[in-house]
Amino acid sequence: MPKISKKGELMPPSPIRKLVPFATEAKKRGVKVIHLNIGQPDIETPLVVRDAIKNFDYKVLSYLNSEGSEKYRLKLVDYYKSVGANIAADEIIETTGGSEALLFGFMATMDPGDEIIIPEPFYANYNGFATAGNIKVVPITSSIHNGFALPSIDEFEKNITSKTKAILICNPNNPTGYLYSIEELEQLKAIVLKHDLFLFADEVYREFVYDGKKHTSILSMPELAQHAIVVDSISKRYSACGARLGALITKNKDVLATVLKFAQARLSSPTYSEVAAEAALETPASYFEGVNKEYISRRNLLVELLNKIDGVKCPMPGGAFYAMAQLPVKDTDHFCQWMLEKFSHNGSTVMMAPAGGFYATKDLGKSEVRIAYVLESAEIKEAAECLEKGLEQYASEQLTTNN
Amino acid sequence: MPKISKKGELMPPSPIRKLVPFATEAKKRGVKVIHLNIGQPDIETPLVVRDAIKNFDYKVLSYLNSEGSEKYRLKLVDYYKSVGANIAADEIIETTGGSEALLFGFMATMDPGDEIIIPEPFYANYNGFATAGNIKVVPITSSIHNGFALPSIDEFEKNITSKTKAILICNPNNPTGYLYSIEELEQLKAIVLKHDLFLFADEVYREFVYDGKKHTSILSMPELAQHAIVVDSISKRYSACGARLGALITKNKDVLATVLKFAQARLSSPTYSEVAAEAALETPASYFEGVNKEYISRRNLLVELLNKIDGVKCPMPGGAFYAMAQLPVKDTDHFCQWMLEKFSHNGSTVMMAPAGGFYATKDLGKSEVRIAYVLESAEIKEAAECLEKGLEQYASEQLTTNN
Repeated sequence: MPKISKKGELMPPSPIRKLVPFATEAKKRGVKVIHLNIGQPDIETPLVVRDAIKNFDYKVLSYLNSEGSEKYRLKLVDYYKSVGANIAADEIIETTGGSEALLFGFMATMDPGDEIIIPEPFYANYNGFATAGNIKVVPITSSIHNGFALPSIDEFEKNITSKTKAILICNPNNPTGYLYSIEELEQLKAIVLKHDLFLFADEVYREFVYDGKKHTSILSMPELAQHAIVVDSISKRYSACGARLGALITKNKDVLATVLKFAQARLSSPTYSEVAAEAALETPASYFEGVNKEYISRRNLLVELLNKIDGVKCPMPGGAFYAMAQLPVKDTDHFCQWMLEKFSHNGSTVMMAPAGGFYATKDLGKSEVRIAYVLESAEIKEAAECLEKGLEQYASEQLTTNN
Repeated sequence: MPKISKKGELMPPSPIRKLVPFATEAKKRGVKVIHLNIGQPDIETPLVVRDAIKNFDYKVLSYLNSEGSEKYRLKLVDYYKSVGANIAADEIIETTGGSEALLFGFMATMDPGDEIIIPEPFYANYNGFATAGNIKVVPITSSIHNGFALPSIDEFEKNITSKTKAILICNPNNPTGYLYSIEELEQLKAIVLKHDLFLFADEVYREFVYDGKKHTSILSMPELAQHAIVVDSISKRYSACGARLGALITKNKDVLATVLKFAQARLSSPTYSEVAAEAALETPASYFEGVNKEYISRRNLLVELLNKIDGVKCPMPGGAFYAMAQLPVKDTDHFCQWMLEKFSHNGSTVMMAPAGGFYATKDLGKSEVRIAYVLESAEIKEAAECLEKGLEQYASEQLTTNN
């Protein structure tokens, strides 16, 4: 029997999805599973998007241009202007989700053995795209103790080698919810200019910024014109994860020309999705105001309730819709599976993402979980109570087992 | 300025799309461009597909399962049964077009430096997916003189090395239209079993088979259970290229588990597209009968008209909707660009795909073009006349230039 590739063996399973079979079993037993494990918002997709699809008129469902239609990209120019970035239509390449933008960006800039520095914990699928290109991820650890702020410049400098081609940040951050300050972005700018590196920024949560803070796009930093590569997606912004429509944005012409070749190989992004994305740009401002208000009240409730639980620590996130929490357990992989397999409280249990999969350094984050607050407040309350009871029962069972 | 990757430099531009800027210029000058360059069918997408999208009812456009919904994959089981293949739902992984199935299949089975044998001319984008994985394409040349039949077993044996991991065929073939016989597939079976290789088959044109011939899927060959990996797509079958919805099908559990990890990294295929694909399975048989009748009459007309032109040779294709033609010119790259830049006849010109890009061996296919007969007969007639006049004028200009 022919063998799979070494790369395929190395490819990490998704830490967000790997507990799915246990959740499915729990549901079969009649247990209600409260999903805090995946960043799938429950917020309604804007009506203007759903109407555009309903009214989309065509006889032949054709390919798009590989880089996306000019009409849509011209409208994106206005959108990026509204977030402080002066971008031309031909500096945007439409992609099938932010995922494909990452894959194409990695492939266009890095060869097998090249290195990319990423502050950890980070969105686990970055590992997947790096593995696909035989690229080495070099993690720099940020800590729950200062809310996952950017590690010091020294930490970056120490890890830069002749193989380093890029630094990647996610801002606001998934999984930590951390929002990088302008000062932190200036520090990154200094590093990438000094060492002539690419700076990737995954900015798909750009609109989800709280407490009067402001998001800064690296596209708005003129000195980074040849270095900045931004990954974007409509998934979170318009609660349209299923569209799989994103973009790669850069002013670097060589990167654009190279990414276009990868885009041409797969012909085009999905046509329905571009129709949805173009319509989404007409979403009224009131939609975002409502959504952000909702996320803020969920976040405040979640963080308050979690920190009230004995032994739980959860820093206040500044953006996105994730929080990282430290639990009083040794191994959240085991605990999260146990919650699904062995536990229920009033007929419910909670599904969370064990944080180990968000760290590249072995054994880090074993006591942490990522929680996506994509549920209504009543469910968050139920989840927090359920988690508290679960932690109590788990602790007593562990005691019993250890005796 | 940071540099792009070597891989990015090696990435070939699309031979199908590279002349697009010249076509755009021609249109700006008021010239009608008859598009024979791209396999974008003009046939209407089935009404049942368009209705399903219009009536798709949802509040939140959510992710799908990474492998596609069970409901859709269960329906695919029936479809594959209807084409002679006994496949279970969990032997199917939904992909974003056949393109992604190829990329995931390559990544799951081959590491950098590994080799895949592909009879040439072949679909140019195979090069792109191989380059993305630093995989070496080893071409085996098939010839216009026997209608692009499978090269001899000897040719395969001569090219198998310790690095060879797979053979890839496209059946019916893009760009040649060749339909492999059962005898040829049996020969391939013997080779892959003897050398323990994977056999990839791109079968996206499975339904487009003419003259009473029958397509054989490698999925219907039980001895190949651990070796066969099929790439599929709804693009051509239902004239739904813009859906970008395909599948990878195999009975090899290791390959399935590995491909699933790549699928998880990009979360899911587009949700609208799966809705379209599921509806497409309800397309009435009469649709395909009408479509095939149409393609046969176009093919017959095209091949007849082309072979009437002085110095043009075009073998009769057995399937798909492509024909390869040899033209009486030295360099079809130059000629096809000239047709767009310098020539028109009654206000029209013809756009074709120069065949060089479909060969991996340097300088092969320089006199050939790929023609997609995705236009109505009246336009095919106009195109053939236009091509004939173009060839005449080009020949006389070349004579003048050479004196």
